[in-house]
Amino acid sequence: MFLEPKLAEHAKKIDAALPLEKMKTDLLVTIGGDGTILRTCLLIPKPEPPILAINMGVRGFLAEVTPKEGLEAVDRCLEGRFTLERCMKLASFIGDARMPDALNEVFITSCAPAKLLYARIWKDGVAVTECRADGMVVASQVGSTGYSLSGGGPVLDPEVDAFVLTPVIPLTAFHPIVFSAKSTISVELLKPKRAVVVIDGHYRTSIEPKHPRITITKSEYESSFVRFRGNFYHRLKGRLLFSRGEGL
Amino acid sequence: MFLEPKLAEHAKKIDAALPLEKMKTDLLVTIGGDGTILRTCLLIPKPEPPILAINMGVRGFLAEVTPKEGLEAVDRCLEGRFTLERCMKLASFIGDARMPDALNEVFITSCAPAKLLYARIWKDGVAVTECRADGMVVASQVGSTGYSLSGGGPVLDPEVDAFVLTPVIPLTAFHPIVFSAKSTISVELLKPKRAVVVIDGHYRTSIEPKHPRITITKSEYESSFVRFRGNFYHRLKGRLLFSRGEGL
Amino acid sequence: MFLEPKLAEHAKKIDAALPLEKMKTDLLVTIGGDGTILRTCLLIPKPEPPILAINMGVRGFLAEVTPKEGLEAVDRCLEGRFTLERCMKLASFIGDARMPDALNEVFITSCAPAKLLYARIWKDGVAVTECRADGMVVASQVGSTGYSLSGGGPVLDPEVDAFVLTPVIPLTAFHPIVFSAKSTISVELLKPKRAVVVIDGHYRTSIEPKHPRITITKSEYESSFVRFRGNFYHRLKGRLLFSRGEGL
Amino acid sequence: MFLEPKLAEHAKKIDAALPLEKMKTDLLVTIGGDGTILRTCLLIPKPEPPILAINMGVRGFLAEVTPKEGLEAVDRCLEGRFTLERCMKLASFIGDARMPDALNEVFITSCAPAKLLYARIWKDGVAVTECRADGMVVASQVGSTGYSLSGGGPVLDPEVDAFVLTPVIPLTAFHPIVFSAKSTISVELLKPKRAVVVIDGHYRTSIEPKHPRITITKSEYESSFVRFRGNFYHRLKGRLLFSRGEGL
Repeated sequence: MFLEPKLAEHAKKIDAALPLEKMKTDLLVTIGGDGTILRTCLLIPKPEPPILAINMGVRGFLAEVTPKEGLEAVDRCLEGRFTLERCMKLASFIGDARMPDALNEVFITSCAPAKLLYARIWKDGVAVTECRADGMVVASQVGSTGYSLSGGGPVLDPEVDAFVLTPVIPLTAFHPIVFSAKSTISVELLKPKRAVVVIDGHYRTSIEPKHPRITITKSEYESSFVRFRGNFYHRLKGRLLFSRGEGL
Repeated sequence: MFLEPKLAEHAKKIDAALPLEKMKTDLLVTIGGDGTILRTCLLIPKPEPPILAINMGVRGFLAEVTPKEGLEAVDRCLEGRFTLERCMKLASFIGDARMPDALNEVFITSCAPAKLLYARIWKDGVAVTECRADGMVVASQVGSTGYSLSGGGPVLDPEVDAFVLTPVIPLTAFHPIVFSAKSTISVELLKPKRAVVVIDGHYRTSIEPKHPRITITKSEYESSFVRFRGNFYHRLKGRLLFSRGEGL
Repeated sequence: MFLEPKLAEHAKKIDAALPLEKMKTDLLVTIGGDGTILRTCLLIPKPEPPILAINMGVRGFLAEVTPKEGLEAVDRCLEGRFTLERCMKLASFIGDARMPDALNEVFITSCAPAKLLYARIWKDGVAVTECRADGMVVASQVGSTGYSLSGGGPVLDPEVDAFVLTPVIPLTAFHPIVFSAKSTISVELLKPKRAVVVIDGHYRTSIEPKHPRITITKSEYESSFVRFRGNFYHRLKGRLLFSRGEGL
Repeated sequence: MFLEPKLAEHAKKIDAALPLEKMKTDLLVTIGGDGTILRTCLLIPKPEPPILAINMGVRGFLAEVTPKEGLEAVDRCLEGRFTLERCMKLASFIGDARMPDALNEVFITSCAPAKLLYARIWKDGVAVTECRADGMVVASQVGSTGYSLSGGGPVLDPEVDAFVLTPVIPLTAFHPIVFSAKSTISVELLKPKRAVVVIDGHYRTSIEPKHPRITITKSEYESSFVRFRGNFYHRLKGRLLFSRGEGL
């Protein structure tokens, strides 16, 4: 058993410390909210081990069990009494460089707030359309219930082999487009030729004028989560209800 | 060569008249707008012959050629110099009765304007969620660019094997959901147990309290259109630009 | 004290029965949901007496007190210990005929589901724009939180002297427009020249080709509601939370 | 006659150069697009002189005349043959500091892309609601046709005495709210207590944790534009059509 270094320090088990980047394990247990899971999936070696997510956050859409149920859940895992939910990830490339795979979404946005990006969208090498917007999100099925949804995108059922491109605050009328997961999508920056890329809310990089293009497609890797019960729509409803409790 | 009866009368070729329901031909030529194509596809025997659509309507999203190009287009068809665009259709069932397949969409709505439907959505026998809305649209890839889009639904790329359920004026927050075309979706009416069903804007029937449920899935049949050029997004842009020329 | 005839029958006080159309009283008590209040306001003589609304419905946005609090509330009214919330109403005219004033909204829609209306909008005799949509809603401040909101309209603060025109499933891009309450708005039907008009969800009439136009402006009358506490946004949140508990 | 310093340099009339901040003139002529007008209005001394806007930009919503018509337009101004369109501006305050008045909008957003702001909205000292979103826009009537519209806000008719608060990518359901221009609105940052403020797309400042609140109300100043013809909706349609020509 290995512990993430900070956790190892807390638990005073420094000997068990191992950076996430080196954790080649058979099972990975995360304790935290969805943000913890997303950060973990960005870092761990590929292919990823199954993840048992214990929910300490307020909105646990990805997580499965409460802290109380944690120990019993580990036992069930060791006995093999669980199902695995396999989740598609998105690979993205800027020039020759590959970004870490996204479990939720790849978000391309302008370098300053309320500044427009003017971009051309390509699908398998064919120009689809142009778009003027604050940004564009490409989201997986799991990610379709997150930032893409807030931007007006649809929910993608977990069984549909697809991802969705959702514009963020489009100046020109531009509807979300659902592409087959077999497609390769490129966003070519026309003006400016510079943008910020945020993957799963944590990994940040930039697109620079010498390669003003990002290419996104289904990854050969996936994330997989231990499930004992419930289903996608049940968890989705829980998450949406939570967030609806606040607004107007 | 056969002519649709009204056309035969116009053209004074009564001998060639044959009702659409009996037109088992190798190629079918439609002259008109998208409405003409949709009506034709509702009626012709299955499996459907390829359709060469000559555009006389204002917004020809499905149609391919102008009247001027019509004769040359027929020649190219006879010589086999064309590609076929195959389009998924949606089968729908109320009790034991099968409705005509939809090329665009199946629309379920209340019997009076501005009256709510309260319905439960099922996917492959599992309850997904409930919805209160004026109506619900289930649209194919082609249909995703029509009424579903006006209701806030996404564009489905022609290559994604999926259909979309879009709520119409939902009272409760309800996002469009994209399902795999392998799914079977049911809309169960909870209150009232009565609704109107409109298929492709032309075929109308009703759901009655004794079977308050409609089931929708991918049809074993498809419609196919003769194409010489252009692509989906090119035609879509043409259609959307037309309609944007008017509004505010 | 008078009772609405059906209620009088229930309560076996037939002598006190008086049709709503003749109820010229100093205070009017409604028992029911928002639908009851809307129906009552459509019928009672103008100017309207203050209304004390006792909530028996599931979503009481307009109502103030629970059945339990009812008697005490009547006492407080008699003692003058309350404030009045005055709500703007909308007057509407088809040709020379005046419709009953709307507390919530005037809804103009096509005669058959999913059929488009093509209309021109006028403001104080000047053409504003054209619109193709399933329908159009003109809503008051109170009504802005109802059907208009579901159609994508904004919330109008009770203090803003304005009403809002919200398109319903527009084919062409068309944004809700907020007009000064001093404006007079006309919807001119271009094609077809026939439509259904629904006022406050209850009163129905039709626009016919000989006068294919409806004119809407602020009424000289208003509805007023007895209030003991709370405020608009507090009640609005209650209503929205209720409805969000259901959807996806 | 004075010239803005850069223009003076271009025109080789350095003697006539005067910074915008000191231009107390009877008429001000701008040559450029809407961005030029917005920048000018941020800088010139209050109360502002009337502006004759000559359009060199691609989308001239605020501008009135083409470069060709420019000289004739100046003549008409000198002869007094024009009308003035008076436009409300928005005053905003952070702590004791007053920001430059906004002609279009005050935009409050998080310091990093795709990071949420959690804020409470106040109206005249009373809490209205909470909101989780990437940002919030408060827009005037003129500004309602700009960034606020892209975010889903309504068009405000120029005659309605109001402004609109529109959420940008709200996580929680949150509808645009139209307030009376007599209201004073505050956005109180709950978490984080830091944000970026952008006024009319040009002036940038920040909200810091020691005064985590911005207050917005109608300014005592306004901008006024020389008009010879046309009207709001005519110009709006021109602008929207332009932008619709591009998207999907």
